[in-house]
Amino acid sequence: MAEKVFITCAVTGSAKMPAHPNFPFRPDHVANEALAAADAGATIIHLHVRHPETGEPSQSLEDYREVVGLIRAKNDAVILNVTTGPGCTWMQSADDPAVCGPGTLMFTAERRLEHILDLKPDICTLDICTMQLWGGVAINLDPMITRMGHMIQDAGVLPEIECFEAGDFVFADDLMAKGALPKGAPFSFVLGTKYGLPATPEAMMYAKNQIPRGARWTGFGVSRHSFPMAAQAVLLGGNVRVGFEDTVYLRKGRQAKDNADLVRWGVDIIDRLGGDVASIGETRAMLGLRE
Amino acid sequence: MAEKVFITCAVTGSAKMPAHPNFPFRPDHVANEALAAADAGATIIHLHVRHPETGEPSQSLEDYREVVGLIRAKNDAVILNVTTGPGCTWMQSADDPAVCGPGTLMFTAERRLEHILDLKPDICTLDICTMQLWGGVAINLDPMITRMGHMIQDAGVLPEIECFEAGDFVFADDLMAKGALPKGAPFSFVLGTKYGLPATPEAMMYAKNQIPRGARWTGFGVSRHSFPMAAQAVLLGGNVRVGFEDTVYLRKGRQAKDNADLVRWGVDIIDRLGGDVASIGETRAMLGLRE
Amino acid sequence: MAEKVFITCAVTGSAKMPAHPNFPFRPDHVANEALAAADAGATIIHLHVRHPETGEPSQSLEDYREVVGLIRAKNDAVILNVTTGPGCTWMQSADDPAVCGPGTLMFTAERRLEHILDLKPDICTLDICTMQLWGGVAINLDPMITRMGHMIQDAGVLPEIECFEAGDFVFADDLMAKGALPKGAPFSFVLGTKYGLPATPEAMMYAKNQIPRGARWTGFGVSRHSFPMAAQAVLLGGNVRVGFEDTVYLRKGRQAKDNADLVRWGVDIIDRLGGDVASIGETRAMLGLRE
Amino acid sequence: MAEKVFITCAVTGSAKMPAHPNFPFRPDHVANEALAAADAGATIIHLHVRHPETGEPSQSLEDYREVVGLIRAKNDAVILNVTTGPGCTWMQSADDPAVCGPGTLMFTAERRLEHILDLKPDICTLDICTMQLWGGVAINLDPMITRMGHMIQDAGVLPEIECFEAGDFVFADDLMAKGALPKGAPFSFVLGTKYGLPATPEAMMYAKNQIPRGARWTGFGVSRHSFPMAAQAVLLGGNVRVGFEDTVYLRKGRQAKDNADLVRWGVDIIDRLGGDVASIGETRAMLGLRE
Repeated sequence: MAEKVFITCAVTGSAKMPAHPNFPFRPDHVANEALAAADAGATIIHLHVRHPETGEPSQSLEDYREVVGLIRAKNDAVILNVTTGPGCTWMQSADDPAVCGPGTLMFTAERRLEHILDLKPDICTLDICTMQLWGGVAINLDPMITRMGHMIQDAGVLPEIECFEAGDFVFADDLMAKGALPKGAPFSFVLGTKYGLPATPEAMMYAKNQIPRGARWTGFGVSRHSFPMAAQAVLLGGNVRVGFEDTVYLRKGRQAKDNADLVRWGVDIIDRLGGDVASIGETRAMLGLRE
Repeated sequence: MAEKVFITCAVTGSAKMPAHPNFPFRPDHVANEALAAADAGATIIHLHVRHPETGEPSQSLEDYREVVGLIRAKNDAVILNVTTGPGCTWMQSADDPAVCGPGTLMFTAERRLEHILDLKPDICTLDICTMQLWGGVAINLDPMITRMGHMIQDAGVLPEIECFEAGDFVFADDLMAKGALPKGAPFSFVLGTKYGLPATPEAMMYAKNQIPRGARWTGFGVSRHSFPMAAQAVLLGGNVRVGFEDTVYLRKGRQAKDNADLVRWGVDIIDRLGGDVASIGETRAMLGLRE
Repeated sequence: MAEKVFITCAVTGSAKMPAHPNFPFRPDHVANEALAAADAGATIIHLHVRHPETGEPSQSLEDYREVVGLIRAKNDAVILNVTTGPGCTWMQSADDPAVCGPGTLMFTAERRLEHILDLKPDICTLDICTMQLWGGVAINLDPMITRMGHMIQDAGVLPEIECFEAGDFVFADDLMAKGALPKGAPFSFVLGTKYGLPATPEAMMYAKNQIPRGARWTGFGVSRHSFPMAAQAVLLGGNVRVGFEDTVYLRKGRQAKDNADLVRWGVDIIDRLGGDVASIGETRAMLGLRE
Repeated sequence: MAEKVFITCAVTGSAKMPAHPNFPFRPDHVANEALAAADAGATIIHLHVRHPETGEPSQSLEDYREVVGLIRAKNDAVILNVTTGPGCTWMQSADDPAVCGPGTLMFTAERRLEHILDLKPDICTLDICTMQLWGGVAINLDPMITRMGHMIQDAGVLPEIECFEAGDFVFADDLMAKGALPKGAPFSFVLGTKYGLPATPEAMMYAKNQIPRGARWTGFGVSRHSFPMAAQAVLLGGNVRVGFEDTVYLRKGRQAKDNADLVRWGVDIIDRLGGDVASIGETRAMLGLRE
């Protein structure tokens, strides 16, 4: 176990919204959830944005600007970790397996990073997986990721390497070796997607053993695996992510009221396992981020 | 994770008593701690006995009879798991490495099982380790363990196989193959002793992979490893043990008031990881014990 | 270690041909290499076909018929394992990330299985991976694989499940659960591709622990990992694949003369590790294939 | 895999001699076996001595001097690794479990190291296990090992840490932390004893993950596990030990003619796995030994 454990709260995500009365999608609601999550102990807020009226996932620069602005107006200390995930989804058409169908959303590197270059958050995610995901294909090939990696570094933003699969660790090594990713970048293990690394202790231990010695990492499981995998990450010396992006349940049959509720559940697990939740300053130090 | 997780409370042990105002050693105190632990959610009580006045570890049949009687007078449902550990400690003399010195306590099989054959508890532990332990040697060689294994089975008591080391799983296989242990016996992994398997996720996972498919098991860590390893056991599909035998702390800097306090902390961890604590009936069913 | 180890020889593959004077691509040459490999100890021949004049990978039914016919004319005992891999390659265009570019070869299920339904070999491979591969994307989504799995079973052919990634084992479980793959199907672990599971002992051990208990499996590494991973498979209780599809080297600096040379090197490793090479009859029994 | 793999040959051991026409026990025979093993590729000779007439294990200084002298007379380059194992065997008496019986051989640190301090070989082994072994107990407690560790270092000899059990790695950490063992000492994993770590890929991988990063290690299995575990060690980046101490068989049903025969079998495995056997100079460099 690490001496200090930091908590990321992923407040809204970009999947289909679950049926929950308090699921945030309007900018002020997302910002308020983020602020409350920070008050509850999360030192990193992982952000996606949604259409202010429909809740559909958005990739609009204006929506990112608004949410970030609302958070920063009230809290300029909490660490912002903004997604670059949207724009790598390819759905196979029913007619021709080589051609994409409805639901496809594929962006260029420039389009995927537009809001990052504009807003320069502390951290942005970088999904490096190519895999079956959500019924389609997540496509993140070497040329695209290499380009994005350089652009992110040039912007002075810290990329968090999102690994969904065993091969992603080999890819990350190659990317680091050619400078497309910085050597000290933190990792995130996304466990339990269909079909990537499963949400099991074995898979998380395998993942932990693949990253560079000393690298910081967060391990989490999707859906019902959220809190078991949070505990597993703590036990293996990693950090924790919770939030409505992953689940709206504290445990089976018990819905969380809001993101802060999930954060408190995570804080409690860390406490009961004997760990200490990192402050914002401690989290920045762990990640090499400037204050 | 298993659907149901049972909790064993080890209320007093036989190590040197820690400085704790409520550490139980008098028979009525031990019994009351056991009863309160059961009320708090433990379905198995693991029992050692101590001298009623000094608190020194006892191996007296009368002391076992008294504590068991006091518990059974008020609770005939909770499962009793009585130790057979005392009597395998060999301390090396300073003068001649072949000769034992002060602190040695070596019993015959008959003497080690005297109270088990008399009281016939639901379960008794069977330490099968030979190793450096507590500055001396725990000696449990094949002839002794084979004899004890048969005597325990003949008495209709279920042995819980206590494994402290990697080789113990090989030994257990051989013991089962020759009938000295029953095929379906539960295992207990004792992690973090000096010097046995360490209290790490890797060691517990290794241990879990060595036992017969489908065997029930409990994994625990000594001292500060108690609750981290309890959580790890839950995540790996095992069961939980807590109690003053292992630690008097809930976490660093926070002492437990009593055994029930530790049980509640364990119940809480199980709950937060999404597990359900097994009832006494469910525990009996899991272990193949009669009601 | 398993008592018996069977050897598959993958005689030509469908990658770009390496510079080797004896690399087979003409039908008679491929067939002769297969026959010699069988004489050297391979009991399963894994077949791709190539254009008879250019050596480019072929997916022509006629080419499959010719090679299979030439083998069967001289050896009706050796087990034939024919690929269904070609037709899942999607290369990203430089202009629009959603659109495929040169090198793409995507088939329907019917087209991918045309030769299998015609020739009904003992075994056909079924790649179930979706991943970055060879600079592009291997796309094998659930609807396609489900359809292929049923068609293969209906044809009375045994599918060998090719797993390149950790998520493939989760996918295989789901496919078996819904009947798209038979419960007893053998697995193949393809290690060391860019970017899938690496060719390491850790990855092969992880893979082995994910498949159904008792399932037969073959583990192999690409390129320079071929023989180290063959040995690792033997040590872990699996089976061996060698052949020019994977490497033309026996070891660094030492080229194999032909496929049989690689088979003999594999036989020798099995022998030196104390294993016994399975006969054709023993291989059929291990896989549940009729004589 | 490591670039270079060194081979230790354990030429005679101190167990009961197997029925083999060429098993060496007379000093000149042991020395000749050692010299031939070195010629065959072993760069380290692991030495025990036996009574020149009966073949019973000897702990006589004169016997050590004679064998070492005979080897050094003809080969002053090969690395000598001399045992300190004899003198830690405790057999339980049938009458009183606290008292030792026939077969016990327990020495003081001074007696166990007499020949090491006299002969100052390059390396001596240091068994740090306390465990059930050969029907008795191997006893190597902290005070004894701490004392031996300091004496070995003071004599300018490199200790090789023999680990038989999972707890031995924890013990080694503590010994290094207090200076009783040098930080860069090599490790040896002894797998497959009854009852220590089993001779499995899982156990060797577990062991490898417990030692300090960068430490050199040799992994071997006893009896029929000798060559499978030699291969496993090569695949995991370790080094190889073979020799009549471990087995007189190349594989089931095929006896080795002599130690050199076993060394050649090991050389062959390393070659077939793509490794290169280290020269004496390379082995000295790997271990930090002076030329």
